[in-house]
Amino acid sequence: MALLICVTGRNNDKLVAKLAALLPQQTLLEWPVDDVSLLKEVEFVLAWNAPETLWSQLPNLKVVHSYGAGVDSIPMQLLPPHVEVARIVDPNLADDMAEYVLGQLLSHKLRVREYGDNQSQQIWKPRRARAGRTVGIMGMGQLGLAVAHKLHVNGFNIKGWSGSAKQLDNIEHFSGQDELAAFLSGIDYLVCLLPLTEHTKGILNAKLFALAPDHCVLINVARGGHLNETDLLNALAAETFGGAILDVFDTEPLPTSHAFWQQPNISITPHVAALTSLNTAAEQIANNYLAMQEGKTLVHLVQKKQGY
Amino acid sequence: MALLICVTGRNNDKLVAKLAALLPQQTLLEWPVDDVSLLKEVEFVLAWNAPETLWSQLPNLKVVHSYGAGVDSIPMQLLPPHVEVARIVDPNLADDMAEYVLGQLLSHKLRVREYGDNQSQQIWKPRRARAGRTVGIMGMGQLGLAVAHKLHVNGFNIKGWSGSAKQLDNIEHFSGQDELAAFLSGIDYLVCLLPLTEHTKGILNAKLFALAPDHCVLINVARGGHLNETDLLNALAAETFGGAILDVFDTEPLPTSHAFWQQPNISITPHVAALTSLNTAAEQIANNYLAMQEGKTLVHLVQKKQGY
Ligand SMILES: NC(=O)c1ccc[n+]([C@@H]2O[C@H](COP(=O)([O-])OP(=O)(O)OC[C@H]3O[C@@H](n4cnc5c(N)ncnc54)[C@H](OP(=O)(O)O)[C@@H]3O)[C@@H](O)[C@H]2O)c1
Ligand SMILES: NC(=O)c1ccc[n+]([C@@H]2O[C@H](COP(=O)([O-])OP(=O)(O)OC[C@H]3O[C@@H](n4cnc5c(N)ncnc54)[C@H](OP(=O)(O)O)[C@@H]3O)[C@@H](O)[C@H]2O)c1
Repeated sequence: MALLICVTGRNNDKLVAKLAALLPQQTLLEWPVDDVSLLKEVEFVLAWNAPETLWSQLPNLKVVHSYGAGVDSIPMQLLPPHVEVARIVDPNLADDMAEYVLGQLLSHKLRVREYGDNQSQQIWKPRRARAGRTVGIMGMGQLGLAVAHKLHVNGFNIKGWSGSAKQLDNIEHFSGQDELAAFLSGIDYLVCLLPLTEHTKGILNAKLFALAPDHCVLINVARGGHLNETDLLNALAAETFGGAILDVFDTEPLPTSHAFWQQPNISITPHVAALTSLNTAAEQIANNYLAMQEGKTLVHLVQKKQGY
Repeated sequence: MALLICVTGRNNDKLVAKLAALLPQQTLLEWPVDDVSLLKEVEFVLAWNAPETLWSQLPNLKVVHSYGAGVDSIPMQLLPPHVEVARIVDPNLADDMAEYVLGQLLSHKLRVREYGDNQSQQIWKPRRARAGRTVGIMGMGQLGLAVAHKLHVNGFNIKGWSGSAKQLDNIEHFSGQDELAAFLSGIDYLVCLLPLTEHTKGILNAKLFALAPDHCVLINVARGGHLNETDLLNALAAETFGGAILDVFDTEPLPTSHAFWQQPNISITPHVAALTSLNTAAEQIANNYLAMQEGKTLVHLVQKKQGY
């Protein structure tokens, strides 16, 4: 049996070395494999943006492990029913995400980019910081809750929205489409931390921008697929929405020709909100691989049917 | 008897109206006064950058009240010994200051301005956030302590420095010139929240920049007079100091010709870190005026000899 590492679009030398050190007795393969006959040995795939053609070539597949917190790049419908899907759950990742959201939100409140632009033109123009302190968070999972806690501790009022009704300390919680309008009313910032599924694709759209206050600013740190890019540009042009801080995009890197680059009300960061930590991730992956071999239950499995 | 409002360089209509509403029975004068013979009535001056010539014209002066948290624009040596000096102490001001420092520090960690510059050139260049989490704070007064608490709650390690030895929760505290080097060692950010006195003038100088780590970034939110501007430019050029976020300057507004505007490692904000709130300040001033009339003890008096 073997573990296949299929993490595309980056240099994996450190990751492979780390896994080899943690799993000295095991066979590790790296995609693309020289000898395709080896694929029949593969029981466990560590995957990030793997090619769709891969999945039909693995007759003995048991586990697909995402190399990240999201599993939206794993096509659940192409996997046999018995195959399990796991993801990275890293407390450091949640801390980083919370610090990113707080930092971007405070930068906006304190007008950091505005004063930066003024500086480049030698303009001295004092203004009070923006006043808004009510934040709506879509997605009350591992990351959404970490962000909510951090913002609450820093004196923000938190409204939360997720799939199912729940009672949460210090959060005014809403669930489902019926309560979306109530959730969006009165918020100054909207943070998206939903998983990308068939139900959440394009959820940040014209209807939502119309329901939110005109000055509301979006912080999208989930996936580019959540956002209808044209609807955002239209809402900003019509001044029925306030602005956006975007870390994720439909196409990454964001193409040079994309309209977002030039928008004064859009701030772009290059998918850096919360980067998977090599050490933590490798340990979790190695432990899950050994658990599979020993017939034990894996940690951080996702519900394949609901897609997260 | 009368209260003289001598707050220069801004429009005071709202302040005067507010004080008049709070002190309906009292005589309020506004500088410059039409009839200088009225100055002999003045027992209480509300002052901000008052002209030096004012002080010798007030034979019945009892109290000088700063219209801000700092009293460095009040020349203590020109005041008779019996005259008391008070300042504004506003919990909202301390909250604003703490949020400004946290927000600027996180913006720097998260590279907000760097990504802003990249955006204007359509550059997609992911980098990890800066790692530094140790902050040195000079001045453990009302504002320094509020900043320390806020940063501690957000997972930063705090070193403090002030005039006298003290035990403070969650702060590694140092005092006096003897312990300055130990205080500066290992810090990633240096926040200045000292009052400006003869002892602290020019304290942010070549010697200090040499003692602090090369990557250390200064956040000066106290007074421009604390900073030796040439020493900072030299240390940045020599790469023996990391950068600066400056809210206060020797001359404000910062002159268009000043070298700071063009420095990539200097971020300028136009003295906005913590703005006096009209309502809170006016109430405190009115209460102190009434206390003076009734022979009661005033709140938030400063030690004239030590200058803060
Ligand atoms: N930008 C970055 O650097 C970065 C880094 C890591 C992760 N991410 C993104 O962050 C996402 C969230 O991660 P997580 O670990 O917090 O996920 P999670 O723990 O699986 O939580 C998902 C949350 O979303 C809610 N949800 C799912 N479908 C919904 C729907 N149709 N309507 C309403 N709510 C719905 C869930 O509701 P219930 O509570 O009712 O189940 C749950 O509260 C990941 O999927 C990934 O895309 C981004
Ligand atoms: N940028 C803005 O928007 C803004 C707004 C408001 C205020 N400020 C500035 O912030 C300053 C601090 O305000 P605050 O209310 O926190 O003052 P504070 O309560 O009077 O505290 C002053 C602190 O500085 C220390 N200190 C004084 N002289 C010292 C010396 N020679 N060596 C070492 N430490 C010394 C004191 O030490 P001890 O504890 O030993 O007495 C004390 O801890 C103000 O003076 C003002 O200039 C700026």
